Amino acid sequence: MSTPASPPTAAILVIGNEILSGRTQDANSGWLAARLAEIGIPVREIRVIPDNEAVIVEAVNALRAQARYVFTTGGIGPTHDDITSASIAAAFGVRLLRHPEAERRLRAHYQAVGSAINAARLRMAEIPEGATLIDNPVSVAPGFRLDNVHVLAGVPSIMRAMWDSLRPGLIGGPPVRSLSVTAFVREGDMAAGLGALQNAHPGVDIGSYPFMTDGRIGASIVVRGTDETLVALVGDKVADLLRALGADPEITPGA
Amino acid sequence: MSTPASPPTAAILVIGNEILSGRTQDANSGWLAARLAEIGIPVREIRVIPDNEAVIVEAVNALRAQARYVFTTGGIGPTHDDITSASIAAAFGVRLLRHPEAERRLRAHYQAVGSAINAARLRMAEIPEGATLIDNPVSVAPGFRLDNVHVLAGVPSIMRAMWDSLRPGLIGGPPVRSLSVTAFVREGDMAAGLGALQNAHPGVDIGSYPFMTDGRIGASIVVRGTDETLVALVGDKVADLLRALGADPEITPGA
Repeated sequence: MSTPASPPTAAILVIGNEILSGRTQDANSGWLAARLAEIGIPVREIRVIPDNEAVIVEAVNALRAQARYVFTTGGIGPTHDDITSASIAAAFGVRLLRHPEAERRLRAHYQAVGSAINAARLRMAEIPEGATLIDNPVSVAPGFRLDNVHVLAGVPSIMRAMWDSLRPGLIGGPPVRSLSVTAFVREGDMAAGLGALQNAHPGVDIGSYPFMTDGRIGASIVVRGTDETLVALVGDKVADLLRALGADPEITPGA
Repeated sequence: MSTPASPPTAAILVIGNEILSGRTQDANSGWLAARLAEIGIPVREIRVIPDNEAVIVEAVNALRAQARYVFTTGGIGPTHDDITSASIAAAFGVRLLRHPEAERRLRAHYQAVGSAINAARLRMAEIPEGATLIDNPVSVAPGFRLDNVHVLAGVPSIMRAMWDSLRPGLIGGPPVRSLSVTAFVREGDMAAGLGALQNAHPGVDIGSYPFMTDGRIGASIVVRGTDETLVALVGDKVADLLRALGADPEITPGA
């Protein structure tokens, strides 16, 4: 099989003490990772860090050097603990400036809903110099893109709306195809055969994920790769392997 | 208020392509973070990385230098994609050795359940030199601790059982107390008052987490700190602030 050029990659930076304390389950990174995989941009790292400027600066600078695209979530609201925008500016060594279009949108929005515009709300118009806005059709306060870093809200409904706004600007690689082969076979009984299949087919990644259902032990074998024909071929071979072990495997597209 | 000594901290390293692809929602890191917070070991970073030895080595070495305790999940099963134990050995520059007690447990287990012991299953007895075992009452194959790094399974029921095994050996700092004050107030209306409260009370962390319920916008203000009296005092002040804005706040212990 031909080896495709390295695909563009992504990293996700989740900013928020509430995730690190276990108070809030992070639902954003898994959702973003699945959307990015669909358009051929595999995620290579997810990092969760606190609302701390020095830590944010270090993580942003590490990840933007490693991945083609970086996405941050959280910390762009109006309260004192929302320090993401200032920290991104610090990471890039640029100023944080009142963005005229962001200010216009915020003033129009709060006038329309009958809330007072104030200093806290105008903080949400402070955007690093050189950044472009990412539209927020839910609550107006924009995200932004600076170089390869996309700064999104932490509230899931807003983050997802911002994704819809920015997605057309992303350039993905070949989409990753996947299927899963599930059976009540213990991993230890299939491991040798599975390893041989992986060795014989370096053009796909074969992952094995054990589970327990009603006390019965099984595993889902996930085959992933950009060559749909090869993924299907290896999936069939995995199913043959499991049948030879006496199981009745089920093949499901899309992992 | 007196400033306590820095508490012991933790980092969590989630190892697994299935999390990065969005196929599997990581439930382990949030669960571990909450348990660690309960015993006074705040989590400072969660990192999700692929099943790739070079990446695991780099992340383990970065995190074990930064945090008092490191916990990894995933990649210690019998299949070809389970490379965590070998990668941890590489990170520490030690050999991976067949551990006699781990081998004894695995042989006894597979004999008892009537499955054949084989090379794949014996791989789960290969433990970095110098590590001590972490018991696995669910499926026997142990985790291990090497210096400050605790290597746990990825299957949630097994990871949690391993936590019960290792927890008595952890030395926490003062437990973090928290409460949340929830009201239908927009963040932008309370931001100035909240910021002033945070400035006046550096002994607690005040976080604001907006939400939308049936189209109504509100926020939960979480007050966290090791001084229970101070946390309660600041919680009351937050509630007073929200009442002054016309709301009827609800105070809930435990954030």
